[in-house]
Amino acid sequence: MAVRLKALADPVRLRLLREIGDRPGGESCVCDLLDVADVSQPTLSHHLKILRTAGLVAGDRRGTWVYYRLIPEAVIEVAELLADIATVSGVAEECR
Amino acid sequence: MAVRLKALADPVRLRLLREIGDRPGGESCVCDLLDVADVSQPTLSHHLKILRTAGLVAGDRRGTWVYYRLIPEAVIEVAELLADIATVSGVAEECR
Repeated sequence: MAVRLKALADPVRLRLLREIGDRPGGESCVCDLLDVADVSQPTLSHHLKILRTAGLVAGDRRGTWVYYRLIPEAVIEVAELLADIATVSGVAEECR
Repeated sequence: MAVRLKALADPVRLRLLREIGDRPGGESCVCDLLDVADVSQPTLSHHLKILRTAGLVAGDRRGTWVYYRLIPEAVIEVAELLADIATVSGVAEECR
């Protein structure tokens, strides 16, 4: 879980995840992500590799391009862990 | 938000947050956290400082000891951001 949190703990990677999830079908071509991330191609690859290793996205090569798909269950699991930590003291109940 | 996620992205700090939140009133003496964290006192201080800087806990000195209190709203905000990222593709709706 710490690996996933580490992968999430970066503004560029958060933006990439949001962008991938916002596309129809929760999937985006790496060619479209280049504009969004506003980083060089090697830097983009580096960030996507971290997201992939953490199991937050899956990549699928089709012809020239790789398409990335958000794995919402993995993100939800982290959200639920945090909601759980926040609720043990009985203060916040809204996100169970 | 990336700062908070970075603070959360460590097994020891996750354990500390859970422990602090589990105590009555969501508050714990630093003396009790030493046993839980199973790290040296300087290492514990280092982790607690990161949690404090990220606004996830607040510290309050009373006599010899510092008491740490979980700030559930801060943890919930991160959980909600992640739930939001995970839901944009329309797959998971349970944590809105």
